[in-house]
Amino acid sequence: MNKLLIVGTVAFDAIETPFGKTDKILGGSAPYIGLSASQFNIQSAIVSVVGGDFPPAYLESFQRHQINTSAIEVISEEKTFFWSGRYHNDMNSRDTITTELNVLTKFNPVVPDTFKAASVVVLGNLAPANQASVISQLTNSKALIILDTMNFWMDNTLTELLEVIKAVDVITINDEEARQLTDESSLVVAARKIHEMGPRFVVIKKGEHGALLFNENNVFSAPALPLEAVFDPTGAGDTFAGGFSGYLTKTNDFSYENMKRALIYGSAMASFCVEEFGPERLFKLQESDLENRLQAFKKLTQFEL
Amino acid sequence: MNKLLIVGTVAFDAIETPFGKTDKILGGSAPYIGLSASQFNIQSAIVSVVGGDFPPAYLESFQRHQINTSAIEVISEEKTFFWSGRYHNDMNSRDTITTELNVLTKFNPVVPDTFKAASVVVLGNLAPANQASVISQLTNSKALIILDTMNFWMDNTLTELLEVIKAVDVITINDEEARQLTDESSLVVAARKIHEMGPRFVVIKKGEHGALLFNENNVFSAPALPLEAVFDPTGAGDTFAGGFSGYLTKTNDFSYENMKRALIYGSAMASFCVEEFGPERLFKLQESDLENRLQAFKKLTQFEL
Repeated sequence: MNKLLIVGTVAFDAIETPFGKTDKILGGSAPYIGLSASQFNIQSAIVSVVGGDFPPAYLESFQRHQINTSAIEVISEEKTFFWSGRYHNDMNSRDTITTELNVLTKFNPVVPDTFKAASVVVLGNLAPANQASVISQLTNSKALIILDTMNFWMDNTLTELLEVIKAVDVITINDEEARQLTDESSLVVAARKIHEMGPRFVVIKKGEHGALLFNENNVFSAPALPLEAVFDPTGAGDTFAGGFSGYLTKTNDFSYENMKRALIYGSAMASFCVEEFGPERLFKLQESDLENRLQAFKKLTQFEL
Repeated sequence: MNKLLIVGTVAFDAIETPFGKTDKILGGSAPYIGLSASQFNIQSAIVSVVGGDFPPAYLESFQRHQINTSAIEVISEEKTFFWSGRYHNDMNSRDTITTELNVLTKFNPVVPDTFKAASVVVLGNLAPANQASVISQLTNSKALIILDTMNFWMDNTLTELLEVIKAVDVITINDEEARQLTDESSLVVAARKIHEMGPRFVVIKKGEHGALLFNENNVFSAPALPLEAVFDPTGAGDTFAGGFSGYLTKTNDFSYENMKRALIYGSAMASFCVEEFGPERLFKLQESDLENRLQAFKKLTQFEL
């Protein structure tokens, strides 16, 4: 069975949206990626770190989704990474209230032996030094490496980030961050410049407006599914990455045509994520839910001239 | 041959974008709608008003595109409507510098007898009272009436605008304006509320993010074509309306399936408009240009699961 390696944060989040607020719930990039990818019945592992305050029940819930948690280091005298934020009424922007790195400052990712030859690797949003460390431990030269990053790393560790970008096959990045990274307003030009930095495939995420997939000569657009209510956008980008990478792991086909399908699967998974607080909706997903939503994407986009 | 009736402004525009600036050039909603619709080899007429300063050469250029100009009233002692604006670097927002209504304050639209039974009618962005006057002159109860409007009329003449909305089959409206009109942040809910106000079809325009088509039970998404450079967005929404209505006039099929195609044709036409200042690109379009661009939309959106 093909394997997916995920490195990312495992955290507590406290979230406030116009629809309500939560105390500390499960958060971080890795759980969203892992739970989303688990929909594809693959073997996956999370490389991360948590503190002594992290409930073992969460780790067990990952295991029930065929996620190997042996490389989630527990540093018992430290506290788990904590983020809290508040979304504005339009749900497209948010204020960060608290960022407590805690145990994350001691993170030294160690890839389990059984996942060093994974066929797909997702480097979730994290310090580029940690992402580079994971790359250096991989043994499968044909692995598809997918990088997610954000403006924080462009602002603070750009040199290290550019080294990681050079080493990956796919980058997923927000539209505003693509513009910042390249100093270009056109996403077509920005994608080309990022392509020239290394990645064969550039995925630009546009939130409620969907996502674009670029390779050297082509562009493909996946809309976001228009929804009655967006309850909580937290983790939607990571859930997208999980659906995208989970589908690619399952199919083991890294062609442009299959990447297009992966973009649709990622968008479908992201559309579930926003329907409830945190990763709640992902825990409850049925196989038929995804099938129905893929059909909704077909209806949303397909036409005959 | 099926006929398209267009009511809208005919104006001078002075435009500044990060790529350059123009003196007074041809502008207004009706020329963009008319030139765009002329791509479909239909008979159309513009109902509008200009001042004595409006160059007859412009009217002749409309006629060369099979646009009947007999209902463009010339009030020789008045000046033509003038708008000037400046686009910000992101091209998604602009400041209006000047709005001189001039002759527009005396506009009393008179539909030519030969177009009272038009099969498709576009009410371009204009005072709702003028739009209502045009509706009252129509004789074909099966005509498809398409309304375009903007926030200015919501702010200033909401009651009259709601009366017009009640009387039309299709409304095209920006995403922010749809939210303002309904006080809803979800476009799905906003579209449903607008649908309940009267129109069977609701088209929500999202600029560089494309457009959504809603009827009672369905939603269809057309992306905007990602472009290397957007030179001047002025008139893109009107050009969209022209492609949308021109295609519907030509095919005379107002089903949801055909509306989907019309949304793609409108989006393709809009993608040309932004490539040069004002309506310049529309004057130079070849038939093969549109065919090529439609294929680009297919490549951009179509996938097999």
